[in-house]
Amino acid sequence: MTSNGNDGGDGNNGNSRDGDTSAPLAVKEHARLVNDELEARMPLGEMSIHRAAEHLLTAGGKRLRPALLLLVAESLGRDPEDTLPPALSIEITHSFTLIHDDVMDDDPLRRGAPSVHEKWDVPTAILTGDYLYSKAFEIALETDASEPKLNRVMEMLSATCTRICEGQALDVELSDADTVSEAEYIRMVELKTGVLFAAATGIGALVAGSDAYDEAYDYGLKIGKAFQIQDDVLDLVAESDDLGKTRASDLFEGKNTLVTIHARSQGVDTSLPRDATDEEVDAKVNEIREAGSIEYAREHARKLVKEGKQDLTALPEGEARTALEELADYLVGRTY
Amino acid sequence: MTSNGNDGGDGNNGNSRDGDTSAPLAVKEHARLVNDELEARMPLGEMSIHRAAEHLLTAGGKRLRPALLLLVAESLGRDPEDTLPPALSIEITHSFTLIHDDVMDDDPLRRGAPSVHEKWDVPTAILTGDYLYSKAFEIALETDASEPKLNRVMEMLSATCTRICEGQALDVELSDADTVSEAEYIRMVELKTGVLFAAATGIGALVAGSDAYDEAYDYGLKIGKAFQIQDDVLDLVAESDDLGKTRASDLFEGKNTLVTIHARSQGVDTSLPRDATDEEVDAKVNEIREAGSIEYAREHARKLVKEGKQDLTALPEGEARTALEELADYLVGRTY
Repeated sequence: MTSNGNDGGDGNNGNSRDGDTSAPLAVKEHARLVNDELEARMPLGEMSIHRAAEHLLTAGGKRLRPALLLLVAESLGRDPEDTLPPALSIEITHSFTLIHDDVMDDDPLRRGAPSVHEKWDVPTAILTGDYLYSKAFEIALETDASEPKLNRVMEMLSATCTRICEGQALDVELSDADTVSEAEYIRMVELKTGVLFAAATGIGALVAGSDAYDEAYDYGLKIGKAFQIQDDVLDLVAESDDLGKTRASDLFEGKNTLVTIHARSQGVDTSLPRDATDEEVDAKVNEIREAGSIEYAREHARKLVKEGKQDLTALPEGEARTALEELADYLVGRTY
Repeated sequence: MTSNGNDGGDGNNGNSRDGDTSAPLAVKEHARLVNDELEARMPLGEMSIHRAAEHLLTAGGKRLRPALLLLVAESLGRDPEDTLPPALSIEITHSFTLIHDDVMDDDPLRRGAPSVHEKWDVPTAILTGDYLYSKAFEIALETDASEPKLNRVMEMLSATCTRICEGQALDVELSDADTVSEAEYIRMVELKTGVLFAAATGIGALVAGSDAYDEAYDYGLKIGKAFQIQDDVLDLVAESDDLGKTRASDLFEGKNTLVTIHARSQGVDTSLPRDATDEEVDAKVNEIREAGSIEYAREHARKLVKEGKQDLTALPEGEARTALEELADYLVGRTY
């Protein structure tokens, strides 16, 4: 399956390819707020599922999704300190999907640490994901908002989780399909990754009581899709050390991505044998690059980011909106 | 792990041991309402997770939990037709736990049909459980209640799911423990089985706007625990055909139950070798019976039911309350 967002590290290796490769300062500051709030809620308990949940929640991650929620709400006048519960809920939802994804893909590593089913076992990983799932709802219910708004937050969260599951299922189905169209792939990315970004930015507008809900939602949906497409690009062009996994794993595993779908439409055989050498990987990536497929995917992501930034004009100008614009650029400019 | 409620069949084999062995008529009628509403919402979609969810949801089951919610609300003046969404939500929550339980235990059968991971695969089963999890929240949000009440429903549902996960985790931990106390076992049963019964009856009172919330909740918690204890008893005394699994599986698997904990306290070795004959099983069950352990567990369950029925006196007299009393008796009187 397509990896669910390579948000393992938090540093900046300075190895810029597209200019801005470090998350905007405001995002880092908001990520710290999220981390502090998570820490303040620990320990979660004495059971293995509590310890496993803490293991993943404290293993790092850029906290992009909760930072988006905080920044949208802030741009609309809400103090980030007051909108932490829904932000935490979004991050915890993301964490639950990671744990179950890793079981399904049997991935041994997550955020540079052993995945939950690797460090504990599969039953503990399933239960830890389930535990975080309901914790996400419990914490969302702490949202400081009027009751009608709170109900809308809960509707968004539950509908979003349903769509994420459908996106995952679609990912599995597309993995087994002989041919996948670009539209099918984009739909999968929207469900699997886009809707949680959109829930973050949409809920940010919702808790601020803004009329700009639709635009905030669309901004999140677009940059979420761009984020996943950039992940696919990075799988081919980033260094293994930065990725935290084998470079070109999508080629080794025969995955469908915007890059490989385009390359195959250009007549490129995108498969790599298990025992391919570094030189063979380089040659294959070059072939794909020369077919214009990497630039094609990059351009697709850049277009989404441009449109998403256009949506942002519905929010009041200011530091928070600027950070949201920078974050959008960062998502397609990052190199790991 | 302890099986999560042997609610596979819906018939009555007439093989009474304790008197009333058939679910009360009102429960069957309400179960039919639940089944009709579930059917009306299908098909859920075209994906494997949708089909797998339908497979489990239509495979039978007594619908005890949603029937409890409908009956409590009805006894307090609400038309069952108007309280179907939260009832469905409770049943779907139960279904999600069954799917993930079966993966964790690698159980090939559920409700007499192949379990989801057996008919599809483990990733599909994990995703189907996750899908039903958020559907339970989505449908609960359709509850016809004022916004403050709806928020309480959502709080109960999410807190209940968290506790069920903790109960499952405790079950795993106790399975690996050398000795388990009666109190630890009862705590596990409360979390794993009791709280969902309690959520059903508590939410039933909540949506009816009743002051009897606490009593309704306590009634559900007590009869839920009694239901699980009766399951443990039936594992030893019911016929394999009725159980839908091997008789005395708890002894073969060395599980801790109220029966085996008591028997060991009386000096009985409760273990059975894998190759034990039917005669050896009968002899071991007789030894446990003669130590008073089966009667001890039955008495514990009966006491819980008696206390639960006492709680019911907080509800108005009438047909619905009578059905709730009969349902409590049925839970400890059933023979499969």
